Amino acid sequence: DFEHAMDEVKPAFGVESDALERHKLQGIIPHGPEFEHMIKTCKTLVDQVKNSEKTPMVTMLLEGAAGSGKTAVAASLGLESDAPFIKLISAENMVGYSEGSKISYMVKVFDDAYKSPFSIVILDDIERILEYVSIGPRFSNPVLQALLVLLKKQPPLGRRLMCIGTTSLAGVMESMELTNVFNVTLNVPNLNGQGVKTVLEHIKAVSVEELDAATNLLDDTNGGGLPVKKLLLLVEMARQRSNEQVVPFSYLVECMQDLAL
Amino acid sequence: DFEHAMDEVKPAFGVESDALERHKLQGIIPHGPEFEHMIKTCKTLVDQVKNSEKTPMVTMLLEGAAGSGKTAVAASLGLESDAPFIKLISAENMVGYSEGSKISYMVKVFDDAYKSPFSIVILDDIERILEYVSIGPRFSNPVLQALLVLLKKQPPLGRRLMCIGTTSLAGVMESMELTNVFNVTLNVPNLNGQGVKTVLEHIKAVSVEELDAATNLLDDTNGGGLPVKKLLLLVEMARQRSNEQVVPFSYLVECMQDLAL
Amino acid sequence: DFEHAMDEVKPAFGVESDALERHKLQGIIPHGPEFEHMIKTCKTLVDQVKNSEKTPMVTMLLEGAAGSGKTAVAASLGLESDAPFIKLISAENMVGYSEGSKISYMVKVFDDAYKSPFSIVILDDIERILEYVSIGPRFSNPVLQALLVLLKKQPPLGRRLMCIGTTSLAGVMESMELTNVFNVTLNVPNLNGQGVKTVLEHIKAVSVEELDAATNLLDDTNGGGLPVKKLLLLVEMARQRSNEQVVPFSYLVECMQDLAL
Amino acid sequence: DFEHAMDEVKPAFGVESDALERHKLQGIIPHGPEFEHMIKTCKTLVDQVKNSEKTPMVTMLLEGAAGSGKTAVAASLGLESDAPFIKLISAENMVGYSEGSKISYMVKVFDDAYKSPFSIVILDDIERILEYVSIGPRFSNPVLQALLVLLKKQPPLGRRLMCIGTTSLAGVMESMELTNVFNVTLNVPNLNGQGVKTVLEHIKAVSVEELDAATNLLDDTNGGGLPVKKLLLLVEMARQRSNEQVVPFSYLVECMQDLAL
Amino acid sequence: DFEHAMDEVKPAFGVESDALERHKLQGIIPHGPEFEHMIKTCKTLVDQVKNSEKTPMVTMLLEGAAGSGKTAVAASLGLESDAPFIKLISAENMVGYSEGSKISYMVKVFDDAYKSPFSIVILDDIERILEYVSIGPRFSNPVLQALLVLLKKQPPLGRRLMCIGTTSLAGVMESMELTNVFNVTLNVPNLNGQGVKTVLEHIKAVSVEELDAATNLLDDTNGGGLPVKKLLLLVEMARQRSNEQVVPFSYLVECMQDLAL
Amino acid sequence: DFEHAMDEVKPAFGVESDALERHKLQGIIPHGPEFEHMIKTCKTLVDQVKNSEKTPMVTMLLEGAAGSGKTAVAASLGLESDAPFIKLISAENMVGYSEGSKISYMVKVFDDAYKSPFSIVILDDIERILEYVSIGPRFSNPVLQALLVLLKKQPPLGRRLMCIGTTSLAGVMESMELTNVFNVTLNVPNLNGQGVKTVLEHIKAVSVEELDAATNLLDDTNGGGLPVKKLLLLVEMARQRSNEQVVPFSYLVECMQDLAL
Ligand SMILES: Nc1ncnc2c1ncn2[C@@H]1O[C@H](COP(=O)(O)OP(=O)(O)OP(=O)(O)O)[C@@H](O)[C@H]1O
Ligand SMILES: Nc1ncnc2c1ncn2[C@@H]1O[C@H](COP(=O)(O)OP(=O)(O)OP(=O)(O)O)[C@@H](O)[C@H]1O
Ligand SMILES: Nc1ncnc2c1ncn2[C@@H]1O[C@H](COP(=O)(O)OP(=O)(O)OP(=O)(O)O)[C@@H](O)[C@H]1O
Ligand SMILES: Nc1ncnc2c1ncn2[C@@H]1O[C@H](COP(=O)(O)OP(=O)(O)OP(=O)(O)O)[C@@H](O)[C@H]1O
Ligand SMILES: Nc1ncnc2c1ncn2[C@@H]1O[C@H](COP(=O)(O)OP(=O)(O)OP(=O)(O)O)[C@@H](O)[C@H]1O
Ligand SMILES: Nc1ncnc2c1ncn2[C@@H]1O[C@H](COP(=O)(O)OP(=O)(O)OP(=O)(O)O)[C@@H](O)[C@H]1O
Ligand SMILES: [Mg+2]
Ligand SMILES: [Mg+2]
Ligand SMILES: [Mg+2]
Ligand SMILES: [Mg+2]
Ligand SMILES: [Mg+2]
Ligand SMILES: [Mg+2]
Repeated sequence: DFEHAMDEVKPAFGVESDALERHKLQGIIPHGPEFEHMIKTCKTLVDQVKNSEKTPMVTMLLEGAAGSGKTAVAASLGLESDAPFIKLISAENMVGYSEGSKISYMVKVFDDAYKSPFSIVILDDIERILEYVSIGPRFSNPVLQALLVLLKKQPPLGRRLMCIGTTSLAGVMESMELTNVFNVTLNVPNLNGQGVKTVLEHIKAVSVEELDAATNLLDDTNGGGLPVKKLLLLVEMARQRSNEQVVPFSYLVECMQDLAL
Repeated sequence: DFEHAMDEVKPAFGVESDALERHKLQGIIPHGPEFEHMIKTCKTLVDQVKNSEKTPMVTMLLEGAAGSGKTAVAASLGLESDAPFIKLISAENMVGYSEGSKISYMVKVFDDAYKSPFSIVILDDIERILEYVSIGPRFSNPVLQALLVLLKKQPPLGRRLMCIGTTSLAGVMESMELTNVFNVTLNVPNLNGQGVKTVLEHIKAVSVEELDAATNLLDDTNGGGLPVKKLLLLVEMARQRSNEQVVPFSYLVECMQDLAL
Repeated sequence: DFEHAMDEVKPAFGVESDALERHKLQGIIPHGPEFEHMIKTCKTLVDQVKNSEKTPMVTMLLEGAAGSGKTAVAASLGLESDAPFIKLISAENMVGYSEGSKISYMVKVFDDAYKSPFSIVILDDIERILEYVSIGPRFSNPVLQALLVLLKKQPPLGRRLMCIGTTSLAGVMESMELTNVFNVTLNVPNLNGQGVKTVLEHIKAVSVEELDAATNLLDDTNGGGLPVKKLLLLVEMARQRSNEQVVPFSYLVECMQDLAL
Repeated sequence: DFEHAMDEVKPAFGVESDALERHKLQGIIPHGPEFEHMIKTCKTLVDQVKNSEKTPMVTMLLEGAAGSGKTAVAASLGLESDAPFIKLISAENMVGYSEGSKISYMVKVFDDAYKSPFSIVILDDIERILEYVSIGPRFSNPVLQALLVLLKKQPPLGRRLMCIGTTSLAGVMESMELTNVFNVTLNVPNLNGQGVKTVLEHIKAVSVEELDAATNLLDDTNGGGLPVKKLLLLVEMARQRSNEQVVPFSYLVECMQDLAL
Repeated sequence: DFEHAMDEVKPAFGVESDALERHKLQGIIPHGPEFEHMIKTCKTLVDQVKNSEKTPMVTMLLEGAAGSGKTAVAASLGLESDAPFIKLISAENMVGYSEGSKISYMVKVFDDAYKSPFSIVILDDIERILEYVSIGPRFSNPVLQALLVLLKKQPPLGRRLMCIGTTSLAGVMESMELTNVFNVTLNVPNLNGQGVKTVLEHIKAVSVEELDAATNLLDDTNGGGLPVKKLLLLVEMARQRSNEQVVPFSYLVECMQDLAL
Repeated sequence: DFEHAMDEVKPAFGVESDALERHKLQGIIPHGPEFEHMIKTCKTLVDQVKNSEKTPMVTMLLEGAAGSGKTAVAASLGLESDAPFIKLISAENMVGYSEGSKISYMVKVFDDAYKSPFSIVILDDIERILEYVSIGPRFSNPVLQALLVLLKKQPPLGRRLMCIGTTSLAGVMESMELTNVFNVTLNVPNLNGQGVKTVLEHIKAVSVEELDAATNLLDDTNGGGLPVKKLLLLVEMARQRSNEQVVPFSYLVECMQDLAL
């Protein structure tokens, strides 16, 4: 069980467990077969880097809608991997950095990673690291180029490296040729009707009687599925307003409107 | 009563009450049910940050026409919140700043906010902070990227943060993905016919006899409703010209023409 | 009489009367009802700032064709206002300035203005201050942003500020959202047929016999009316060539062709 | 006689006669009524600045095809004017200058000009001063803005200034609003059939017998007329090849082909 | 036999054999006649530079799909050439370099190459050296221009230089005029059906019984052929999952899906 | 005979004969009437500068397909001219220069040229000096502007200057107005069928028997003619492969395919 395994991760040398934990504050709820197959593939790839002689480096891109859980999944994989070196590269740690400083920072992380026999480097929210905005579009080409090179460069002999990227802009990654340099691209799915139900049950958000009504409500409103992060925020808001852990249906409806779901 | 509550706010530690007060010089006139529902939602969200364990950070965007009252509403929410730290980030305090200085300034405000158990940060007129202009369009991408990150970054354990943004360019915010990083987006409505009447009555701008005529006049001329700020300026101009507090109808007509309403 | 009033302005503290005078070297000729209504509105607005408690800051944009007299009108309003502080911000004083220096200069002017109980700041030829050119188009966005902020910022408690902008590119101001931040926009009209006649009579440029012929000539040739500045140059040129103050008709025709009117 | 007058210009204080002379090495040949009317208008304008009280500054743009003689005409006007200060601003003296240096240089020239009671400043080849190229198009906006201001700024009381610009890109000047800031725009015409004949006769380039044949030849080939500079180069080339001052017809034909006329 | 020859290359003065070896970790499998003709042409060109008096410099561009084996081929040619100086210029060694530093670095390599009687310089992944991205598109024009010059410049008398470039963006090279400055452009082909079979046999990836099924599977799925690098990764992944060197068919199918082949 | 004359050029003061010689390593083969007429025109122009009083500066642009022989022709003209100062300005000597350094370098060359009574300056591959690339397009506008000025500026009294530019992008030169500032533009032709034959005969590349077959082969394949440089490379390649000076037909065919002719 993936979620369970996450719970017993022990602090490791060179691993910022706390930082990683903060990115999956609300745990990982296995919400359906599509999600679980994705997790299984991820784990096989981590094992491949750990064990195969001929593939000392594997790069994997997790793409999915905003709030679908990409960062939480990447953090969980890291925590679960037993790798002696795990590092999450995030725009949060580079606010206001010049392009040069960003590149130095990332080169440094990769150099550190090369020193450990087996390392995991997470590039969280690649569009943010690249300062991408669709107006223009604009982004930092030097940073992009550095990524394109770092993701293709083999580690030194005897070292192994797993690189996990996350993005909610798969199309943009494609046209930047980033998709090309990742060995594998996996989709982190949104919740479909069944997934919404599973989550609501799992966190005991509504009474058993109202579960189907709630699921229908949320299922109807959203074409491409519902991001798990939005659903958890919605429940929290409704709990706050109703002042109850098991939320009455009417509160859910009200909060949905305010969140424009 | 929202307007009333505003009046009894006491000076608080880390709160620039004076600066906030200056942004609602003419008070908050409750001008209709749509406006009042919006205010209620705002307050529930402030309460949620204050109380819920699982949502230590909530971000809310107030969007509406120029002069519809966004800044006044945000300032009022701050003054009314009892938060020990309230800060309004405005382009007024950053005239001529370099992009780097703007970013440092904002990072500093957020860092200060993290030190208080519960803080409110207002980002007033986001398009101005971003130096946005539709010709091009041009804007400061580094500042935008810093905002995108700061608005998504969780506060340290045990700290709570409410972030309120204001904008009159909802569409631009959308294409910059800013709408995406705000948890909630609320519309600050313009005055419709009934709202105009309510305001004119409230400030005793016209005689009871001429109230309907004045309301009709102002209601006709404006498709998307009338901004409260423009209406208050119009009345002031007419008062000045007529040299009377209760303005004769003809003066109102004249001033409307000069203001091209 | 507006023109007359201008003549008796006395030197005032903080007022560069000489500089202002140089911008209306040829006086202000009241050339028709449209022009006079505009002047009246301007003066009412100046009075409003001087007297109303609730509108300590009013901003007004004078827009009109090149040479229609915008700068002369703004200078006259300043000279006539009795304000203890009057300052004309012009690109002439910022040739070759960096963007930063321009902004500092303008911030300084506004800061000085805030020190006087009642001030008038004229932003002459805003497109030139912004270094606007329609090819591209290009302009200084930092300077624009500074203006957008300065024009919206309230003066300190107890201070009053009237801001007058001039431009011949009303459409550009619109798409830069400058029109939005000005409270009022007024048109400075070109001369129509009657206006041309009034001016020619006023300056005794042609004999009474030839006045109608001259007026017809000038009225025909120009769709949107004739700028007063061009007419005055034309007369001066004809006077020079004919060597007479009262110009024979034929000389007028000749000069018109050379000026491509 | 214009050409004659040029010959007797005496060296004047502050006038770079030699530099000016070098721009009309081959003299000024009066080649037709259109050309002579243009010269007459120019001279009247110079006189106007010298004499009229009310127009202390007049600005004039000479536009015409490449090689039509714009620079030579401007230089001649200067040499003939008796002005104590004459200065030709040319890109030749600013090769490799930064934008800032160009602006300083031009401001300096105008400041010097303001010190003399009557000055002439020539802005030769404005597109080159602006580093204009149609691909893009690109040009130095700061330099353009400086010109727009300098050409509109009144000289100090009691000083008179004539500004003459030259350009072969009238349309570009228009879209840069430069045409707008010049008081007058005059066309320097190319040679038509009659003009070609006049020039060939004047410099005795062909025998009287072959004059008509030569004129026809050159008249046919060129839609918008022939630039005087090209014609003079052609004759020189043919003289060189034939080794005779009076060139046989066949040599003229040959050289025309090589010059792709 | 090309592959065999590679195995016995001895370390040479000025040759980074190790670095070159790392770029063909998995050897060179001769996978069909098209590939072998390409290799033969390459070798003839190397010989021509070595021997012909009149062509002291030959430049060759290897273009082909991502993963088709361009870098491995270039490295093999170098190792096999017996040249006393061989250098691989790669973006990997220039991460974060300024444009100037990149140019200096490349000029230095060429200068070193000129010192040896016969040298080989490999420009690997030219699009990456140029920091090319199709959005825009953007790239470093100074670096491109330096390449355009260095690739056309003759070595000093008596020195010989072979330049090998690799790219997967042949069309982009064309529009940058790089194709023009290379004397020869050769295509490194992807694997067709027969090629896939040859490789699978060569590395004993599947049992003889399943060979045809596997070949068909891989042949169908890909219009333009399969890159050898992808096929080798696929096999490695399947070996890892099945835990067998000779991979059962079903594992191959599964991995293909994960790699989205 | 042009080619012959080239052979007896003696080293001259201020002339880099060696550098010039290196640009015509394979001599100049007179390959047809079109080519020879072009050469004759060039020489007449050189003579004109040397002798005519009235044209102390003539500028000439040699344009033609890549490899058509432009640089070799320019170098030959220089070597043959007996000018005491000859300088070839090439991008090869400015790799990695800043725009400012390029301009300084070129200004220096022209200044040196002005010191000699008669000088020749060659601007080789103007598109490369300008760092032109068609994507965008991009190029150095400051360098272009410097060229536009230097090519139009008259040398000091008594000095003579011939400027020869070469380019394979005639259309680009046109839109940059460079064609305009050159007095003459001449086309350096590719080889047509007869020209190919002449060259093959001249260098004894094929046996008399196979000459017509070879000529046909090469003539068919190329619409706009064959560049002499490509033909010479082809022959050299075939000589290398066949190991014979007189190349058998089949080798020629093979090499043509590899060169994609
Ligand atoms: N099955 C799940 N997968 C991922 N996250 C889950 C799952 N179940 C619960 N969660 C919780 O949902 C939240 C997912 O948020 P997360 O930040 O990982 O999403 P994201 O896709 O990275 O969002 P964004 O696009 O904003 O970066 C986390 O708080 C996580 O603990
Ligand atoms: N119900 C109301 N809501 C908001 N403001 C009100 C209301 N009633 C009265 N006001 C007054 O109207 C004015 C609204 O101006 P405010 O600057 O807040 O508008 P805004 O939408 O921020 O304008 P802008 O788009 O120019 O930033 C304030 O002076 C405020 O005191
Ligand atoms: N009624 C009038 N209004 C304005 N100017 C007048 C009037 N009558 C005469 N004038 C004179 O006409 C001239 C108007 O020129 P002014 O520079 O003010 O025009 P402008 O619109 O600012 O021109 P520009 O568009 O070039 O800036 C001044 O010299 C002024 O003295
Ligand atoms: N009537 C004339 N007008 C002008 N120039 C004449 C005339 N007659 C002869 N010339 C000679 O013709 C030449 C004109 O060249 P000039 O450089 O002035 O032309 P231009 O229009 O400035 O060219 P460009 O567009 O290249 O700057 C000069 O050498 C001048 O002496
Ligand atoms: N015939 C072959 N040609 C080339 N490479 C081969 C061949 N046979 C096996 N290989 C192996 O295949 C891999 C080819 O990868 P290589 O990096 O050279 O491809 P590439 O085209 O340069 O890829 P990229 O486009 O990503 O730069 C190498 O590991 C090489 O050892
Ligand atoms: N008639 C000829 N004209 C020019 N070059 C010739 C001729 N005959 C032989 N050659 C030789 O052909 C080669 C021409 O190459 P050159 O570099 O001059 O061409 P190019 O047009 O400048 O090429 P690029 O467009 O690449 O700059 C030289 O080696 C030269 O010696
Ligand atoms: Mg995330
Ligand atoms: Mg506001
Ligand atoms: Mg003005
Ligand atoms: Mg000229
Ligand atoms: Mg490669
Ligand atoms: Mg060349």
